[in-house]
Amino acid sequence: MQDKMVFKYVGKVFIVFSLLLLLPLLIALIYKESVKGFIIPLVVSMSIGLLLQFIKSDNKTLYAKDGFIIVALSWIGISLISAIPFVVMQHIPFIDALFEAVSGLTTTGATIFGEVENLNKSILFWRSFTHFLGGMGVLTFVMAIIPLSHNTKSMHVLKAEMPGPSVSKLVPSLKKTLFYLYFIYLALTFLEIIFLMIGNLDLFNSILTAFSTAGTGGFASFNSSLANYSLFNKYVVAIFMLLFGVNFNVYFLILMKEFKSSIKSEELRLYFIIFITAVLIIFLNSYHLFKNVFEAFTSIFFHTSSILTSTGFSIGDINIFPTTSRIVLMLLMLISACAGSTCGGFKISRLIIIFKVIKRDFLKVVHPNSVRTITFEGKKVDEDTIKNTSTFMFLYILFIIIIMFIVSFDGYSFEITINAVISTFANVGLCFNISDFSIFSSLSKIVLCCGMLLGRLEIFPLIALFTSLKFRK
Amino acid sequence: MQDKMVFKYVGKVFIVFSLLLLLPLLIALIYKESVKGFIIPLVVSMSIGLLLQFIKSDNKTLYAKDGFIIVALSWIGISLISAIPFVVMQHIPFIDALFEAVSGLTTTGATIFGEVENLNKSILFWRSFTHFLGGMGVLTFVMAIIPLSHNTKSMHVLKAEMPGPSVSKLVPSLKKTLFYLYFIYLALTFLEIIFLMIGNLDLFNSILTAFSTAGTGGFASFNSSLANYSLFNKYVVAIFMLLFGVNFNVYFLILMKEFKSSIKSEELRLYFIIFITAVLIIFLNSYHLFKNVFEAFTSIFFHTSSILTSTGFSIGDINIFPTTSRIVLMLLMLISACAGSTCGGFKISRLIIIFKVIKRDFLKVVHPNSVRTITFEGKKVDEDTIKNTSTFMFLYILFIIIIMFIVSFDGYSFEITINAVISTFANVGLCFNISDFSIFSSLSKIVLCCGMLLGRLEIFPLIALFTSLKFRK
Repeated sequence: MQDKMVFKYVGKVFIVFSLLLLLPLLIALIYKESVKGFIIPLVVSMSIGLLLQFIKSDNKTLYAKDGFIIVALSWIGISLISAIPFVVMQHIPFIDALFEAVSGLTTTGATIFGEVENLNKSILFWRSFTHFLGGMGVLTFVMAIIPLSHNTKSMHVLKAEMPGPSVSKLVPSLKKTLFYLYFIYLALTFLEIIFLMIGNLDLFNSILTAFSTAGTGGFASFNSSLANYSLFNKYVVAIFMLLFGVNFNVYFLILMKEFKSSIKSEELRLYFIIFITAVLIIFLNSYHLFKNVFEAFTSIFFHTSSILTSTGFSIGDINIFPTTSRIVLMLLMLISACAGSTCGGFKISRLIIIFKVIKRDFLKVVHPNSVRTITFEGKKVDEDTIKNTSTFMFLYILFIIIIMFIVSFDGYSFEITINAVISTFANVGLCFNISDFSIFSSLSKIVLCCGMLLGRLEIFPLIALFTSLKFRK
Repeated sequence: MQDKMVFKYVGKVFIVFSLLLLLPLLIALIYKESVKGFIIPLVVSMSIGLLLQFIKSDNKTLYAKDGFIIVALSWIGISLISAIPFVVMQHIPFIDALFEAVSGLTTTGATIFGEVENLNKSILFWRSFTHFLGGMGVLTFVMAIIPLSHNTKSMHVLKAEMPGPSVSKLVPSLKKTLFYLYFIYLALTFLEIIFLMIGNLDLFNSILTAFSTAGTGGFASFNSSLANYSLFNKYVVAIFMLLFGVNFNVYFLILMKEFKSSIKSEELRLYFIIFITAVLIIFLNSYHLFKNVFEAFTSIFFHTSSILTSTGFSIGDINIFPTTSRIVLMLLMLISACAGSTCGGFKISRLIIIFKVIKRDFLKVVHPNSVRTITFEGKKVDEDTIKNTSTFMFLYILFIIIIMFIVSFDGYSFEITINAVISTFANVGLCFNISDFSIFSSLSKIVLCCGMLLGRLEIFPLIALFTSLKFRK
C-alpha cells in the first residue's frame, strides 16, 4: 500500500465534502434553524482534509488495491462525519446517527426515525442530500478535482467505485466521462423536480424527493413516505426511479445520438422484461387485496419500481402483499437494476453473465468437447471478468449469511431478519413487517451499517482495506 | 443418446427392483397383511424390465449424457412404481403416494402422513426400506448386476450417481469398489440394529430405524418420531447419523488399514468442526429454553446431527429453537455432510472448493500477477471440477428459488415456504412450523417431488434428460 499517497487522496475527498456541507448550512439559515450541526462536521472534515495534504509523497503509481483502500477509507470517514448533524441537531445516540448517515450515503434509505415530519428542515434536506451525493459516489465527484494527469491512476480508483462490471468505457478521457455522467445525473434530477412541481408538490419537497430518487435512496420527508402524493406524482416518481435504474451508458449513447446501440443493450432489455414480468406476477397474486384494479396497479407498479431500483419509497402498506409477491420482491431486491446506475444490489449485467456461464459450463458437462465463448453486449467476456463475477456472487451470498446470523441475535422472526438484511445489503431500505430500523440492537445496527457499505462498494474495497490492515500486523 | 442401450439398462434396474419388492412382501406375509400392494408393483416392474430386454442394441459406448439419462429415467420410473403400495394399501391419492415414495427413495423423509402409528407394518417397513435402497442409490446396486466388462461405460453411469465431487476413486475395479461400499453400508446398518436392540428397542423397529438412519432418510414408525426412544438409543441414532454422514472413502481407508490418511481428510475435519461449532452456537442461543442443561444438550446434539446429515429424525418439538438457531440449522440443511456419503445437500467438499476458489480469485483481484493452484485432499483440483462446482452451486440456488416461487402460491408464510423447499431439496425432511407435508397443494407436492429428485441426483442427470427430450422435438 502506498500509504502516503492514499491518505493524500482521502484528504482531498474530505476537503470537497466539507465544501458540500455549505448547502445544508444554507438551508438551515433559510429556515432559521441552528447551524451548529453543519458547522462542526464542516470544520472537522476541512481540518482533517487539509492536515492530510501536508503529507509528503513521492510515489507516482497507484495500484488497484490502493484505489480500493482510498474508496473504503473515504466512505467510512465521510459516514462518520455525516452522522454528526443528526447527533447535534436531533440529539440521538451516535450509533443511530451513524446508521442514518450510512443509510443515506449508501443510498439505502432505511431510517431509524419512526417519525420524520417533526425533524428539522435542514436535517430533512441533509438526509436526501446524502442520497444525492452517495448516488454518484463520493469518489466519482472527487475524481473531478483530483489532478487527472495520470489517467491510469484515477481509473484504479474509479474501478472500485463504478458499480457493476464495466464492459466498455464511455469515452477515453476520464474527465469527460465524469462530465457527461454528472450532466445526465443533474439533468434527470432537474427534470424530476419540474415534473413533481407540475404535480403540485412544493419546491422544497420536490428537490428532496428528486434527490432521493436520483440516488435511488428512499428517504422521504413524510411519515407515510409518498402515500399522500398526488396520483400524477406517484407515477412521476415510479418512472424516474426506473430511469435512474438504467445504465448511464444508455443515456450517454442517446446523447451521442447512437439510438440504435442504446436500445440494443442486453441489460436494458432484461431490465424491462424483469420489471414487467414482476409487475404481472405480483398483480395476479395480489390484485384482489386492493380496493380496485387501478389502485392495485398503481401500488404494484410503484413498489416494484421502488424495490427493483433499490430506492425504497412506498405509497402504502406493503405488508398487504402475500408470500409469492414477497418472494418476488425480495428477489428483485437481491438482483436490483442495471450496472452503471445508482442502484445497489447484484446488478442485472452480473446476472446475465452468471446465466451465460451456467449455460456454457452445463453444456460442457454434457458435451465435453464443446468450446464456447461468452459474449455480453456484443463483446467477448474474458475469463477474469467471469471469475470476478463468480467471486462477487459467492461473497455476496456469504456476507448476507454472516450479517443475517449476527442480526438474528436480536431474536426477531426469520422473515424480518432475512428481509432486513437483504434490504440493507442491497441498499433498498424497505422491509416487510417493520416500519423503521430503530427496533434493532446497537450490534445489529453496526453490522447492518457494514452491510450497507459492503453492498454499496461492491465488497472488494472493504476486504482490501481489511486485508491490508491484517498484513501490516 | 444411445436410446436402445439406455432403455436396456433402465430395464435391468426395473428387474432388480422388482426382486427387492419380495422383502416387503415377506413382511406383509409375516404380519398377515394384504400382499396385493406389493404384488402389483412387483409384476409391473418385472414386466417392464423384461420387455425392455427385448430391445436389440449393437452400440457399445455409453457417454456421460447416457449415464445421466439412465439414472434420471430409473429414479423417475422407480418412484412411480414405489408409490403403488401406498395407494393400494393406505387408499391415499396417487400424488400423496408419489410424494411419500419420492421422499423415501431420495432419503428425504418428509411425510404426508399426519399419523404413522396406524399404518400397516409392511407399509412402515416399505417406507424405511425405500430409504435404505435410495441411500446407496438405485443405480449403484444395479451396477453390480450390469455386466462390468466395460469399466469405462459403467463409470459414466456411476458418475451421475455418486454424490459429491470425487477426487479419487477407491479401487481400480468398479465391481470391487461397489463390493466394499455395500459391505461398509451393511456393516454399519447391522451394527446400529445391534446397538438399538441393546437400548431396548424391538427387532422390527430397530431394523426400520437403522434403515432410515443408513439412508439418512428420516421416516420413523412413531408419530413422535424418536421422542419416546430411550436416552441411550437417542445417542445411538445421533452418532450413527453422524457416521453415515462421513465420506465412505474414509471407512474404506480404515478397512485398508490406512488410518493416517483416513483422519487426514480435509472434508472429515471440517465436517466435525461444523458439527461442533453448530452445536455450540445453538446451545448458547437456546439452552435456557429447555428444562435443564442436559436435556438441552441431548436435543441440540441430536437435532444438529439429524439436520446436518440430512436425516430428519426428531426427538421433540423443534419449534422451540429461536431465530439464530433456525438460521444455523437451515444453513446446515443447505450444506449437509460429506460427499461420498448417503447425505443430500450441497456437500462439504464442494463448500471447501468454493471457498478456496473465492480466496484464489479474490487474491487475484488484489494481486493481479499471483498464480495459485487449488488443492483438495492433497490433490490439485482441475479447472473442470471448479467449473462444475460453481455451475452446481448456481443451479442449486436457482432451483431452490424456482421451487420456492411455485410453492409460495399455496400462501403459507415466508418461513414455512423457504424452509419446506430447502428441507426437501436438500433431502432433509424436517421443517419448522409444520408437522407433515399434507398441507401443501398437489402442484406444490409435485414440484417438491421434482426438488427432492433434483437434489438427490445433484441436478445434472435430470437436466440432461430434459434437454435430450427437448432436442428431439
